[in-house]
Amino acid sequence: MTELLPPGVPDAPGARTGHAPVAIDGSTRLFAVLGDPVAQVRAPALLNPLFAGLGLNAVLFPVRVPAGRLADVVHGLHGIANLDGLLVTVPHKFAAGRLAARRSRAAELIGGVNALRRGPDGAWEGDNFDGAGFVRGLRRAGYDPTGWRAALAGAGGAGAAIAVALLDAGVAHLSVWDPDPGRLDALTGRLARHWPGRVTGAAEPLLTGADLAVNATPLGLRPGDPLPFRPAALPPGALVADVVMTPADTALLRVAAGVGLRTHRGSHMLEAQLELYQDFFGLHPTPRTRRG
Amino acid sequence: MTELLPPGVPDAPGARTGHAPVAIDGSTRLFAVLGDPVAQVRAPALLNPLFAGLGLNAVLFPVRVPAGRLADVVHGLHGIANLDGLLVTVPHKFAAGRLAARRSRAAELIGGVNALRRGPDGAWEGDNFDGAGFVRGLRRAGYDPTGWRAALAGAGGAGAAIAVALLDAGVAHLSVWDPDPGRLDALTGRLARHWPGRVTGAAEPLLTGADLAVNATPLGLRPGDPLPFRPAALPPGALVADVVMTPADTALLRVAAGVGLRTHRGSHMLEAQLELYQDFFGLHPTPRTRRG
Repeated sequence: MTELLPPGVPDAPGARTGHAPVAIDGSTRLFAVLGDPVAQVRAPALLNPLFAGLGLNAVLFPVRVPAGRLADVVHGLHGIANLDGLLVTVPHKFAAGRLAARRSRAAELIGGVNALRRGPDGAWEGDNFDGAGFVRGLRRAGYDPTGWRAALAGAGGAGAAIAVALLDAGVAHLSVWDPDPGRLDALTGRLARHWPGRVTGAAEPLLTGADLAVNATPLGLRPGDPLPFRPAALPPGALVADVVMTPADTALLRVAAGVGLRTHRGSHMLEAQLELYQDFFGLHPTPRTRRG
Repeated sequence: MTELLPPGVPDAPGARTGHAPVAIDGSTRLFAVLGDPVAQVRAPALLNPLFAGLGLNAVLFPVRVPAGRLADVVHGLHGIANLDGLLVTVPHKFAAGRLAARRSRAAELIGGVNALRRGPDGAWEGDNFDGAGFVRGLRRAGYDPTGWRAALAGAGGAGAAIAVALLDAGVAHLSVWDPDPGRLDALTGRLARHWPGRVTGAAEPLLTGADLAVNATPLGLRPGDPLPFRPAALPPGALVADVVMTPADTALLRVAAGVGLRTHRGSHMLEAQLELYQDFFGLHPTPRTRRG
């Protein structure tokens, strides 16, 4: 899967394919990624090489849609017979979830979707692979979080998804911290109803005794950002994971490694998500027929 | 312009670029071609290399939309902030014209649009370049139809567009023939109101005395098709033009050349239309910035 990563995504040293070009003709199947803004999205640079590698005549393009037009645009896109799927990013994950005819259990618990496909009956089904990608990425790297005590910084979209996936994966306890008390309470309340006794909202990251500490805040994207938590407060042997992908070695991961902790980069989550998209959309290798 | 033509388009011997690949990222501007079916459309293979050649970060993709969903899809596409234009083909040209906020005079006379763009005020404007492309193609090949007597076979979408453009270009007289009397009368009635005394509907192609005879029927696409008219009935020096592009040398053009007449291939119209699209959508050469 690493050969699909674009420039700037770490852990893919041999594979700077980036904006691998795609060929389009009248038979091309369509996928779109919806956001606003959308210039920053990585999905076209990740999925188009994936399609090409699988021999699929398919293309994913970016769709910038203002929030007020989302329902119209989604309704219109659903009317396109050769459009097979949508990815959804900020700020549309919650609204797109409400527009789906069906949502996965994970999407219901997270409160939003990041992928929609046409179901067997033609109705659109939404799912959310942010958290499942994180957990799959952990397992791919050799870590099984079952029974772990986990600390999570960030109760936004990525945090909510990772929280649900970690609880689903069987962590013994999850503490969640977020600077916004309202957002934190809403998420921990929802999680605690589903997993009573296993979730705590914390006024500050609870690191003592944690096997895993995850940064799901944007802290680390900019050079001057403070650390989301202090790795030194974690016990020896703990794993520190970051969802920030740029830079590959965030300040958090550098500090964690400096005090002897194990670290886990954001790119693991992204790679695993690509596999999950591939399954969700039914993207299987196909001998590409000659087109002309 | 010939270097933009795909395999199968004649008159572009050095330029089998075809499905030249395009690179897509989050900043890519969008164009779509709407039809049903859409697998046969040449627009992606023609426009995507044009975008690339101009250094534009833009892509055109095919959209198959059933007639009953056209209004929803067009409304939805209009809500996409990075979508700049639509091309329209069978069977949507007439309905798409009705969905446009404004239509060019040519589109009004033809009765349908094949291109829509976002106007300066955000409203969508429709135009139709089928006929204008034909006349520009004639002129590019050295023929000025002003003052000519023209005979046209076919009163469908292409025929109506060519009729309007030839009359606009100042032909002295145009006779139109079509196997469907209702369709023929509707078109010639509309044209005669606008250009009184210069248009005749004919029960069979009127070739005597014609300077130009145009095939705008699909006859010639299939090997066993009868000729749309008999070139031998034309006067010496007449020009025979075909809108059929595959094969490049249709039976009509071969027979016309065989009796010493001048001939004009369908590809001339297509090449000229590409130039008109370029003007309409404001596609100007741009140094493509490095994206990543």
